[in-house]
Amino acid sequence: MEVLRNNFEAFLPTIEDAIAEADFIAIDTEFTGLGIEKSFQIDYLDTVQERYAKCKMSAEAFQTTQYGLCTFSWDAAKHKYIAKPFNCYVFPATGNRVLGLDRHFTCQASSLSFLRDSKFDFNKWISQGIPYVNRDEEAKARRKIGVLESEDDVPITGAKRVYVDEVMETIHLWLQNAPDRTLDVPTPSRFHRRLIHQEVRKKYKSALRTVGKDDKIVISKQTDEERTAMASDRTKQLTDELNDLIGFRKVFELLSKSKKPIVGHNMMLDLLQTISSFHKRLPDDVREFKSTLANVFPIVYDTKHIAHTNPTVSPLLTKSVLGDVFTRISCPPFRYPAIGIDSGFSGYDSGEQNYHEAGYDAYITGVVFAKMAALATNTVEGQRIALQSPALMECVNKLHLMRSDVPHFDLVAEEDLPTRDNVFHVFGFEKGTSYGDVQKEFIGLGQVGLAGFESTRCFIIVRDESKIPDVISTYGEIVVDVEDHAERHQKTFSYQLETYADYMAKKLTRQENGLSSSLSDLRRTTAAKRKLVDCESEDTATATATPNFSPGSSSASLPDDPSVSDSVKRQKKSSVSHRKKHRTASKLLHEAAKRHLSTSANSSSSCTIV
Amino acid sequence: MEVLRNNFEAFLPTIEDAIAEADFIAIDTEFTGLGIEKSFQIDYLDTVQERYAKCKMSAEAFQTTQYGLCTFSWDAAKHKYIAKPFNCYVFPATGNRVLGLDRHFTCQASSLSFLRDSKFDFNKWISQGIPYVNRDEEAKARRKIGVLESEDDVPITGAKRVYVDEVMETIHLWLQNAPDRTLDVPTPSRFHRRLIHQEVRKKYKSALRTVGKDDKIVISKQTDEERTAMASDRTKQLTDELNDLIGFRKVFELLSKSKKPIVGHNMMLDLLQTISSFHKRLPDDVREFKSTLANVFPIVYDTKHIAHTNPTVSPLLTKSVLGDVFTRISCPPFRYPAIGIDSGFSGYDSGEQNYHEAGYDAYITGVVFAKMAALATNTVEGQRIALQSPALMECVNKLHLMRSDVPHFDLVAEEDLPTRDNVFHVFGFEKGTSYGDVQKEFIGLGQVGLAGFESTRCFIIVRDESKIPDVISTYGEIVVDVEDHAERHQKTFSYQLETYADYMAKKLTRQENGLSSSLSDLRRTTAAKRKLVDCESEDTATATATPNFSPGSSSASLPDDPSVSDSVKRQKKSSVSHRKKHRTASKLLHEAAKRHLSTSANSSSSCTIV
Repeated sequence: MEVLRNNFEAFLPTIEDAIAEADFIAIDTEFTGLGIEKSFQIDYLDTVQERYAKCKMSAEAFQTTQYGLCTFSWDAAKHKYIAKPFNCYVFPATGNRVLGLDRHFTCQASSLSFLRDSKFDFNKWISQGIPYVNRDEEAKARRKIGVLESEDDVPITGAKRVYVDEVMETIHLWLQNAPDRTLDVPTPSRFHRRLIHQEVRKKYKSALRTVGKDDKIVISKQTDEERTAMASDRTKQLTDELNDLIGFRKVFELLSKSKKPIVGHNMMLDLLQTISSFHKRLPDDVREFKSTLANVFPIVYDTKHIAHTNPTVSPLLTKSVLGDVFTRISCPPFRYPAIGIDSGFSGYDSGEQNYHEAGYDAYITGVVFAKMAALATNTVEGQRIALQSPALMECVNKLHLMRSDVPHFDLVAEEDLPTRDNVFHVFGFEKGTSYGDVQKEFIGLGQVGLAGFESTRCFIIVRDESKIPDVISTYGEIVVDVEDHAERHQKTFSYQLETYADYMAKKLTRQENGLSSSLSDLRRTTAAKRKLVDCESEDTATATATPNFSPGSSSASLPDDPSVSDSVKRQKKSSVSHRKKHRTASKLLHEAAKRHLSTSANSSSSCTIV
Repeated sequence: MEVLRNNFEAFLPTIEDAIAEADFIAIDTEFTGLGIEKSFQIDYLDTVQERYAKCKMSAEAFQTTQYGLCTFSWDAAKHKYIAKPFNCYVFPATGNRVLGLDRHFTCQASSLSFLRDSKFDFNKWISQGIPYVNRDEEAKARRKIGVLESEDDVPITGAKRVYVDEVMETIHLWLQNAPDRTLDVPTPSRFHRRLIHQEVRKKYKSALRTVGKDDKIVISKQTDEERTAMASDRTKQLTDELNDLIGFRKVFELLSKSKKPIVGHNMMLDLLQTISSFHKRLPDDVREFKSTLANVFPIVYDTKHIAHTNPTVSPLLTKSVLGDVFTRISCPPFRYPAIGIDSGFSGYDSGEQNYHEAGYDAYITGVVFAKMAALATNTVEGQRIALQSPALMECVNKLHLMRSDVPHFDLVAEEDLPTRDNVFHVFGFEKGTSYGDVQKEFIGLGQVGLAGFESTRCFIIVRDESKIPDVISTYGEIVVDVEDHAERHQKTFSYQLETYADYMAKKLTRQENGLSSSLSDLRRTTAAKRKLVDCESEDTATATATPNFSPGSSSASLPDDPSVSDSVKRQKKSSVSHRKKHRTASKLLHEAAKRHLSTSANSSSSCTIV
């Protein structure tokens, strides 16, 4: 079902009902770009905070163009799931200038071409997209409605000054002498009218009212009642407009209030786009983001994460691109559950593919989820999927991370980071040194991966575990006397090498000491900005965050289902105990930092800080 | 004539001929935004450098969507001008990833809505827009073609590592033992094929060639000739693609080479967009920009500037918006010259209005220019306009400046800035102080304009000259003893006040001393970046810049026309002598700075630097 600006209000109850009766809801977003510039580029060795920061930058720069959601509810009579897909064009709200709503956003040329190739209708997007205003923007607009004096006055000079002064004198005389309630002032242009509006408002406030006509302004005296009505009329008119412009955020809030499981495919950016577009400014700290998201969507499933990690499903797949997975799950052993599209929703069950239309992608994501979930939980024909089964609880609230050695992005706990004992920082080489040069240099280590390549540094990832212990002794020291070290490696080009832990320790130390003074100004500014945003009160819609696994009603019904709460608890506990077994990332880094600080005083080798 | 990607090459000779025979060429651009954020906002008291910096920021953030040009050539037989309007959709080039062409650009929501309301077809823009690549982008892409190693390698781990190692071993055995020229390697996915491409290229360079098929890779041994051909094939293919993608820049270069008069309406942003999109990065310094533009377009007429300043035309106009001016010049006393649209160019002479279609706006801008120029130069029926008449030379190379007390933006000389003796800096007041508060405070000064309003400061512009001498004595001092100063003004709120000259002097001093150390790092980075751009060689197309007032041929014919050179010289001379009569802006500020420095040591009043 295509939802546009002109049918949005009519469809909203249908969307509300569909969400209320759903077992789970799949989502997908299309946006104006992904980011190819350096600052956006993900790196295999990104820390979770770094990766989040890059995704945040992308979500804030680019704009959602289409939001797809597809609800799936179990039909007990027909023993199948009924899907209701909604494909919504969304375009950032503009409106009366006073409201200050007019997003600036970034487009990436190739992304627009890609969307157009996928039949995205940009004309429809701009003229028929459902508007939206996030909470930060709404708060700012409401403040502006309160002030109502934000429009800049135009300075008046020369001939215009003479003209305006004459008009003001005429008004003065009319007020003193004439009994008429209105005065017509001829105006040569719209600009002249604007000046008269401005000067009369400034001088007489609401005692006079100015209404522009084709080539004149009609000025009228106001009674006390009219003055009060006029002020509240204007406020009411702007408030009504703002309420309309909130638009698609209402759907986001319905989704959030429902606390139903939200399903996406490779959905990190979808979630960040959702928060940034419809909720509020993304926090800088990844932990703060997780806490925000846990309030908004307490149950999240990423089908790409399931495809990669579920022991039943993963071996059956060779690719994890959405289209490929959808093709694969359409064949045995993927059989159940049966899924039909509600008869009121045309289109997607014809077999025709509409990849990259958000509604279609949401629909097939939901189908992929259901089929994988059924197989993973041994769900048989005619049976509803038990979403709280341990096999699924293993995957809940974990997002797939593209090109990363971090197993997943964990929405409710700190990630178990790889120790990266097999990663070494190679630095201080000359500009112009190539991938090939570095690979040749380390050929003795067997298969070596490269990451974070910059002009004078990179990381090497040693795949052969048996080689790891010798890396530092072979490559980390400068060969002083070649004769004495005949067996030792001679460097093919000049560089230094250190363990990943040492690199991170130095980086942390630098962050904590070195730059703090020169950056303090910048920090103060950033902190001040953040304060402005933080002071908005929490939305009541998302203040409570009890997850809702049970279909058909609001979260109020949740406490009746002990199995759910139990499994949620189990999941949390397992996550906690799992964490205990591993050193967490921050611990690891702090240990390394300590080690570095305690040894650096005695160390005779001078390490260049890069 | 609508020009799109698929008919561009076919129409290019028509455009070339039209430019070659033209007396003048009108241009207009449409773009993705104007900028409402603080950093873009123009202010009445902007210095020329500040205004340029804001326009530059806008031109760099937003993107040209449509370029209109309309050539006007005198038909001596028919005694009228023949117009040839071209409406060109332009979209930034993308292409092979190796070329690194993929602009990120900003859109402003309200601007897209505005364009859509004006019937701009965004679908056509994206899928049919003529590509373009400026010189900086081209140089970067050519470097990349030279290197051809810019694609990042994918790290290979786990099962994929095992798979790739097995394939590499198979290839090794095949090379050692098998006489066959080709080897088929089955591949489970596109990603597996990518890995094989990568590893084979890395290990065997061009000794082997890899070609991906549906579910396999075909690896073939290469002869020496094939290897050479393969390398140059790839280079040639990319070079050809890049040459195609230069696209609309070819039109810009034809315009520039012609040295013909370029006409626009309120064209500051059009010119900056033109340079930034099709030529090269805009310089930071406004003087450097003027020098760049003088090379590119040596003769420029802004019809809005003419409308505001020409003594014959200006009194006849009440508005200077393009549409209004066009309506006005369609009636007497605007009569000549006769203008017809070439029979091969349909559309714009039907009387139907297509405002904000770039081709149409370019056409009516040219008509407006011709009619105003004819009246200003007393051109009679059937006569060609003498573009080198003194009345027009007064207006050449001067751009209208919106909302500014600087009379115009001068493309060939430093502007004569107003002294701003009637401007005062009010600062140090409390946040929350409103426009109204400030206006009330200074009500004794008569009509007062406000500019540059920020939370704790603003400027007041005193219109009544007789009040200026008393401003400092009345408002600039703190009233210590109210009894003794019964006649003196008592402030309604706390603030300080200084002359504009003092404000600018302090600002200059701060820029020269205060921030230099803490910003040195930033400057180094910026300088390094700029160096990269500056090292591109000057384009030969724009190396010479002899203006071309004579229609029908290249600039080679120019020196034959002494009247032109003379009038150009006259114009320059007049501009120089005019400058001598006035203190220039920088002189003014330096004088003020000196004054401030010499007095501040003796001054007992402490001035807060804001």
